[in-house]
Amino acid sequence: MAQPPPNPELRRDPITGRWVIIAPERGRRPSGPRPAPKTHDGPCPFCPGNERSTPPEITARRAPGTRPDAPGWTTRVTPNKFPALRSEGAADETRDGLYERMNGVGAHEVVIESTEHHAELSELPLERVEQVLSVYQERAQALCADPRVRYVLVFKNYGPSAGASQGHSHSQILATPVLSNVVEEELLGSRRRFEAAGRCAFCEMIATERESGERVVREDETFVVLAPYASRFPYETWILPRRHASSFERASAEDLRALARALRSTLQAQSALLERPDYNFLIHSAPCREPELPWYHWHLEIVPKLAGASGFEWGTGVYINATPPEEAARRLRGLEPAERPAS
Amino acid sequence: MAQPPPNPELRRDPITGRWVIIAPERGRRPSGPRPAPKTHDGPCPFCPGNERSTPPEITARRAPGTRPDAPGWTTRVTPNKFPALRSEGAADETRDGLYERMNGVGAHEVVIESTEHHAELSELPLERVEQVLSVYQERAQALCADPRVRYVLVFKNYGPSAGASQGHSHSQILATPVLSNVVEEELLGSRRRFEAAGRCAFCEMIATERESGERVVREDETFVVLAPYASRFPYETWILPRRHASSFERASAEDLRALARALRSTLQAQSALLERPDYNFLIHSAPCREPELPWYHWHLEIVPKLAGASGFEWGTGVYINATPPEEAARRLRGLEPAERPAS
Repeated sequence: MAQPPPNPELRRDPITGRWVIIAPERGRRPSGPRPAPKTHDGPCPFCPGNERSTPPEITARRAPGTRPDAPGWTTRVTPNKFPALRSEGAADETRDGLYERMNGVGAHEVVIESTEHHAELSELPLERVEQVLSVYQERAQALCADPRVRYVLVFKNYGPSAGASQGHSHSQILATPVLSNVVEEELLGSRRRFEAAGRCAFCEMIATERESGERVVREDETFVVLAPYASRFPYETWILPRRHASSFERASAEDLRALARALRSTLQAQSALLERPDYNFLIHSAPCREPELPWYHWHLEIVPKLAGASGFEWGTGVYINATPPEEAARRLRGLEPAERPAS
Repeated sequence: MAQPPPNPELRRDPITGRWVIIAPERGRRPSGPRPAPKTHDGPCPFCPGNERSTPPEITARRAPGTRPDAPGWTTRVTPNKFPALRSEGAADETRDGLYERMNGVGAHEVVIESTEHHAELSELPLERVEQVLSVYQERAQALCADPRVRYVLVFKNYGPSAGASQGHSHSQILATPVLSNVVEEELLGSRRRFEAAGRCAFCEMIATERESGERVVREDETFVVLAPYASRFPYETWILPRRHASSFERASAEDLRALARALRSTLQAQSALLERPDYNFLIHSAPCREPELPWYHWHLEIVPKLAGASGFEWGTGVYINATPPEEAARRLRGLEPAERPAS
């Protein structure tokens, strides 16, 4: 391709209102239209010493005295080289008859979680997982300060079947000028429930689950890990703060420390039980600049990618899950006998 | 497993209202929790001569004088051996605090499209594709007559990455006692648009697209094939009847003949361009027993499964598509010069 591809844009489906990002630039990334190779060809752009292979870093946790874009870091954030959204321009909406579109403004960043090429996030020491989470939070806060940004998605694709095009463990942050359908549905649904019941539905869920215990994978003072009642996927787990809070961006340092423990331990159990599966996780948090919402409850959702588990769900919205969440919780707990909930 | 697994049930997510099917029986199908093998071990249960490997047939198109569950058929329908839903029992809803569930009643059928193990649907002669479509319609009509059934989904998973666990080309029919979120969203969205504009939004889309021509892949008197404006996936295509109609179940024999032509030709173009990709297709039709709806427009959606195309979309609802639909349409048209739209 001699010419640079056109800038990304957001387009809205006229029937469902769902936004999609049309990002021709993404077509140039390593995976291309054919399956991504399992192993990486050539030097890894995320390994120390290859910092010049990525766009200049945005932030990093690095040893005192070391320079940006040089070794000495432990966690490093750079713009995505093949961004789905770009930081230039205004978030203008254009309407043409049935169709609405918007410049693809926003940001798409990569969080390189560690210097070790082969280490998965859950294999890092606890304080390094905590560091990764604090980097997520720092970037989410910074991106939410941009008035064009309505939402910040923090997510991780691990392994080729989960959508990762690099083997070196990393996460991604996407700042969007619109709300996704999934987030909008959750906000509307939780608000509707709040208005009917006078209580946060997630808080009610946590109370119900702690009482029965049958879908609880693990809990401590701060977080509870559940296999949700209506799990879409086998071994889907959610990590929820026990105290009501609508935004990950406002979580305290203590919360992040506890989240690191819960996340690491859940990923380790998943990895041991399912033989190091590919997976996705995603932080669900309130939209940018919202005050504390009494109906919404931030949380982290983890889904291992198991073959045969999600064939046609994209189009039907009907999820068929062969592993009841009670069984998933029992099996995930079995690998954590020390932390098994008392119930 | 000595004990039979528990019966399937439907569970509703308390926040979003999305229904999922918890179907332990599905855990026993060939693909299991690990990736499905690319090639089939042992005799194919869908090949002629092995009719006893499937549950007894529900219907078939077969040569006069041949017996059920014996060779002589060209298209054959059987219950899914590993059903996501079962035909016994009542569609009772139970509520327990936050949680709602329902017996997993309904049906899950397999349409074995042809006797040839290696033939993909688009490689069959036109009249055989037409036969497959008429079998879909016959089963959809029969299943919709059951008052417990609210919706019939006709879909196809082709290839392991699209969720198929058998190599022999087949489609599936799922009759559900609830509406999926995706269908509900489409019904609500199209109704909202109809109330605002006094016109079916799909009809408006067809008119707009035929006028510009830039996203039209193919058209004839009866159907238009589009790469939709807000395509979620590279090379996503929709086949829509040009005349307004809300239900596939009521399509005429002439419509089915034209649909066979449009579907076969679109799948052939996709196969040639993308090197025989895995894919899903799905018929979107109005719910069972609805009268003709002026706002809803039945159609068939096709999505090839290209690696790297759908990493994290499950959770974010943000679809990132690197192939603009204008480019997809141009390339898909290129392989069908004789049928290129006049635009």
